[in-house]
Order: sequence, then structure tokens, then C-alpha cells
Amino acid sequence: MKSVYDIALELHQKWQGKMSTELKAPINNAEDLTYAYTPGVAAPCVEISKNKEDVYKYTSKSNTIAVVSDGTAVLGLGDIGAEAALPVMEGKCCLFKQFGGVNAVPIVLDTKDPKEIIETVKRIAPTFGGINLEDISSPRCVEIEKALIDELDIPVFHDDQHGTAIVVVAALINSLKLVSKKAEDVKVVISGAGAAGYSIIKLIRMIGVQNIIAFDSKGSISKKHKDSYNFVKQDIAEITNSEQLDVSLEEALVGADVFIGVSKKDLVSKAMVQSMNKDAIVFAMANPQPEISYSDAKEAGARVAATGRSDAPNQINNVVAFPGIFKGALQSRAKKISEDMKLAAAYGLAEMIPDDKLSEDYIIVSAFDEGVADTVAKAVMNKANK
Amino acid sequence: MKSVYDIALELHQKWQGKMSTELKAPINNAEDLTYAYTPGVAAPCVEISKNKEDVYKYTSKSNTIAVVSDGTAVLGLGDIGAEAALPVMEGKCCLFKQFGGVNAVPIVLDTKDPKEIIETVKRIAPTFGGINLEDISSPRCVEIEKALIDELDIPVFHDDQHGTAIVVVAALINSLKLVSKKAEDVKVVISGAGAAGYSIIKLIRMIGVQNIIAFDSKGSISKKHKDSYNFVKQDIAEITNSEQLDVSLEEALVGADVFIGVSKKDLVSKAMVQSMNKDAIVFAMANPQPEISYSDAKEAGARVAATGRSDAPNQINNVVAFPGIFKGALQSRAKKISEDMKLAAAYGLAEMIPDDKLSEDYIIVSAFDEGVADTVAKAVMNKANK
Repeated sequence: MKSVYDIALELHQKWQGKMSTELKAPINNAEDLTYAYTPGVAAPCVEISKNKEDVYKYTSKSNTIAVVSDGTAVLGLGDIGAEAALPVMEGKCCLFKQFGGVNAVPIVLDTKDPKEIIETVKRIAPTFGGINLEDISSPRCVEIEKALIDELDIPVFHDDQHGTAIVVVAALINSLKLVSKKAEDVKVVISGAGAAGYSIIKLIRMIGVQNIIAFDSKGSISKKHKDSYNFVKQDIAEITNSEQLDVSLEEALVGADVFIGVSKKDLVSKAMVQSMNKDAIVFAMANPQPEISYSDAKEAGARVAATGRSDAPNQINNVVAFPGIFKGALQSRAKKISEDMKLAAAYGLAEMIPDDKLSEDYIIVSAFDEGVADTVAKAVMNKANK
Repeated sequence: MKSVYDIALELHQKWQGKMSTELKAPINNAEDLTYAYTPGVAAPCVEISKNKEDVYKYTSKSNTIAVVSDGTAVLGLGDIGAEAALPVMEGKCCLFKQFGGVNAVPIVLDTKDPKEIIETVKRIAPTFGGINLEDISSPRCVEIEKALIDELDIPVFHDDQHGTAIVVVAALINSLKLVSKKAEDVKVVISGAGAAGYSIIKLIRMIGVQNIIAFDSKGSISKKHKDSYNFVKQDIAEITNSEQLDVSLEEALVGADVFIGVSKKDLVSKAMVQSMNKDAIVFAMANPQPEISYSDAKEAGARVAATGRSDAPNQINNVVAFPGIFKGALQSRAKKISEDMKLAAAYGLAEMIPDDKLSEDYIIVSAFDEGVADTVAKAVMNKANK
């Protein structure tokens, strides 16, 4: 039997690119050319030169985003460079179109310098209605996203941070409902203090979670060690671990209600899950191998278990978030994607599962469920118009 | 009756972008996701990270170009900026796809600094199989194109220079055949010493034309005035006007065989055409109003007249060149578009009209004629493989 690797390779060779550009304006004769090209094309040019906002009225900017990467943190493969990142960016563009109806163009960059990345995206920005940053390593991604949000007047969104966070929060809202615990009361242990971990921490605080302790590969993040941290971990230290504990992941999990993993495979044992509080919630999302498998987590007594994998229940997959996020942002002509929009998207996703359908193995919708992107888009638009 | 302007505006508002991105890889269920996205997409990523050339095997780079502009020389409208240039770039992308089958993405730039333009195009280049520069003002466009050709390993082509030149040379080859004059013997007067004029001069020299005198808005270009010229005009002065004449356009046209205009409307009178040699050839391509209209040129005795307009015979339109140029360059994986390729394209276009069809009013094929892009592509590929 052929492996997934071999089949995927064959298919990619057949496709020679997973996206194409296609005409919406017909060009079948000289008259068509008159309107779509010269001399007629001068009309929208003149109008836009008089009023720059008209670019949304007459061009693809209204519904086209760029999916930008420098190839430094691609899948679990790490820094593989611009060209090798292109298949992932094309795939992402397919998802934007398929699920959100958003035109998306991959742009892979021949630079890893944050200043140059920021500069380059700013220079190509007039073309696009939004920028999705992708697979850029942490903490550079946070710095790059922040600068672009500040300096551009189109939405900029680093999916690896916020897409994941939105879906985690949606799944957490539903899981807490299921186990009848309040966000204010639970103790949350987070393994992974990179791009995704940072955004998850900020967003779960917005639903009321107060007791959070986060871990990087060296141990618990605490203000005590602030001087040795990059700015992302410094901020995590500010807003978590108020007791400034120096503990191991194993120690922290004793009595914890929620584990959220965006780190490495096999970091969590069955014994560690057993040591957690009653009705434990375990989201083990390291890719492709989770911190603990769905079945091990369940066997160890977790009430709710979820991973990033499609071969177990409760897949935490940010494809349920990002197409709708940009669909809503583009349709409402939002200039930023605010924390309120992200939170609204998470609640919108959570509420797609009615109470009578909610169960241990159905805490989050799937990308192929009907209306997912539209629900997210509507939630984003509601906040954008306020 | 509605004007072309109004109809074009209405259509552009309806289209909201003349191109869209569409999926070639189906994503209809979880299995599709496995191959087009994670985990399968890791396979082409790994292969490309091992051998960068494999990016052509597994991605859209093999058949996708960027159409890049800074919006400084758009149509006859001049420096209207990035956003206002976008409708033209989208139109160009439509033509690449419709006629050449080449996927094309518009990129309009928020910078006019040549150094920054070069830098930006280099940084986004890993994404694309080729770069078509468009509507960048002269002489900056020449400098930008040269730097990018030197520094990138994908074909870079400034259509306003070479597309026009290729079609002019094709039309000139056929016109000379029609009037039974040899390129070596004719006197050619060129009005316009910008991007297009410069490329035309270089390319007609390659078919054997020796006697050339070129004009800018101030008069005849001559080595005598070299110190006052930009580097483009300095080079034009080097390779034309060997007698270093200081004459007016009117004086130069007396006894001339060929007039080529890429300058401004109404610069040439009927009397000036009457003063030309027998069997005069007049290509008046200023847009949208030519140096002299087709009918005035004919009435004044020109044997062959051509303009850039679609409402008169012999439209000199570079859409017969650029789609095939890139189709051939991409298919042959050429790293540059050489002068030999451009010349081969011109001969290929000229030879599409058999001797028994060639006439005063049919010296160049139309974009809608069958096989145009393929003929150009084949000519380019023949030279690329040598």
C-alpha cells in the first residue's frame, strides 16, 4: 500500500500548483478588450486616482488576501526556506477559497529578517484586502504581526497564533459547559510558550480564566526569570503564574482542570492525567504527534480529550476559524482584527453545537459542517460594525 | 448612449476584480485535506527542502508570474499610484491567462524608489516563475529591469519596452517585405526615446537597420548632447545618428523610409508624411491618440500605416507577444529572456502571415487569431534550448 507521503507527492506533481488564476471578466473578442483592458480600463484607474477607497469598489482588493511566509516554522519541519514552504501556503490558499470564498495568493519571501519582512509586506499591501501571516517562527512572528497591524490599514492576522487560539477557546467554552465548571474557577496548565501558546493565554483570559501556569521547554514561566526571556515570554510571565512557582509540568498538573498543549509529543503521561482534577479537560495539540494521544488521555480518566489529529474525535483545527475570520473582515471592511472579533468568533464557533448535541466527543464543529465560515464571518462582522 | 468610460466603470463594479483564484486540488472531504494539506503536504515540502529545483515540480511556481507595477506610468495617465494602477494589472493578468494559459498575479507597490522596487521583487521572487514589469516610468524601468535580470534566476521582462518592440519589429519585417526594401538600406525616424523607443532601436538594429535617428521632446538625440541625457538616451545617442545631426522631426522625415512613433499625438502632419521616401511605412503608436491617424497617413501617401488603435487596420498591440513570451519562457524553464528570444518571437509573429495573405492592411496578426501565443512560445523555446 502506498504511504500518504507517496500519494501526496504524486498528487502534487499532477497538480503542479494547487491553485490557478481564472478570469471573472470575459475576454473573447475585441469588444471585451475595450472594457476589460484599453481604453475602458482607464475609467476605474481615474476614479481610484481621485478617491483611493474606490479600489475596493472596482478591483480584486475587496476579496483577495496574501498568505505570507518566510518558511521559518513550517509544519513540524522547522526552517525549510521559502520555496519549500510554498506547498503549505498554496494549501492554505485553497482552504481560504474553499471554505471562506476568499481569493488568496501565496507569497513566500526570500528574507528572514523581521525588518525586511515588515517592509516587504507593507510595500505589496496596496494589492491586497488583508494579510495572513503563516509559519513564521516565534517570537519574530509576534513582532512582525504587531508592526504590520500598527502600520497597515488592512487586517493582518497571524493564523498560527490566533486561529489556533480561537478554536481552542471555542472548544474550551463547550468543554467547561459540559463539565459544569466556570472559567473563573479552573486551573489551566499550558505547555508551549510560542506563538500559539501566547495567543491562547491572552484569549482564555478574556473568557475569565485567571489561574494559568505556562511552560516552555525549560520549565514553568515565572516573573522571577524574566531577564532570560524574549518579549513574548516576558509578557506571558506578567499575566500568568501569579504565585511565581518554579514547578515541573508533572507537579503543575496535579489538581489542574485543563491541560492545553502546543508543544511536543509525549510530554504528558497517563499518570499525569490521572493526577488532574475530576472531569479533566485535555487538549493535546502538538503536531503531528500530540503530547498525549486521545485514547491514552481518555483511558487515564480525562472527561474531554482533543488533539490536532483528524483520526480521533474533537479535532482542534484552525480551518474552522481563519476562512470565516477573513471573510467577515473583508466584508465589513475592517481595518484590524480586534481581540473582540477573535472572542466573538470563538463564541460563534462554540454556539454552533446546541446543548442537546454537545457531548464529550463533540465539543467543536468540523470544517465540513455547514455554515461554519459564515457563522464566524457574521460574528466578526458584528464586532467590526460596532 | 453610454460612453465606453461609463460601461467600463459599471462592468468593473460588477466584477469587483477581473481575476479570481480557484482550486486545482479538490478539497471536498477529510481525505482530500490529508493530501492537499496536512499531513500529506509535508511530502513536497521535504522534497523541495532537499532539492530547491523541485519547487517547479510540485508547485504553482512552474506556471505563475507576477505582474508588478509601481503605478508611475499607467496608460496615458502617468503617475497615478499603486491602487489606481491595479485595474490595468488585473487586465494584464487576464490577458496572460486568456492568451498564454499563464497564471498571473497583480502586485502593485507602495514605493517608487528603484532600489526598493528591486529589493521587494527579489524578496517575493521565490513564489513566482517569472516577473512581468509594467507601467514603470522611464528611465527607472530600464535600471530596475536590468538589476532584476542580473540578480534573479527567473525571467524578468518589462513589457512596455520589449513587448512593443517585438511587435513593431514583426510588423516592420512584413512591411519591408511588402515594399521590397532591405533593412540595411532604410532610414528610420523614431519619435520617443523612453522605454519603448529604446527597446525598438535595439531590436531593429538586430534585423539589420543601420540608419536610425531618434527624437525626444527636445529634438534629435545626438552624442553631442550626451552630458544632458539620462543613461537610456546616452545609449541611444551611441547607437543612432552617426552623423550627429541637429535636426527637427520635420527635417528628419524628408526622404525617410520608416517612421516609428512612441511619443505624443499629432506630432506628424500629412505634409511630413508626403516628404518621406516612396512606399513610406508609418507606425504611429502614441496612445490613445497617435502621432498621425491611420487615415491621414494613408491619405498623405504612406504605403503602410499602423497605430495602436483597434478601430483601424494594423493594430500594433503587444498582447500578441507577451503571453507567448512567458508561456515559452516558463515551459523551457529559461532563466532569462534573451535578445535572441525576442528577435525569434518577432520573426515568428511576422511569419504567421503567409506571403499570399500579406497586404498593406494585414502586416501583423491579431491576438484573437489562432495559434499566436503558441507560435511565439515555440520561437522562444527554440532559442531557450540552444
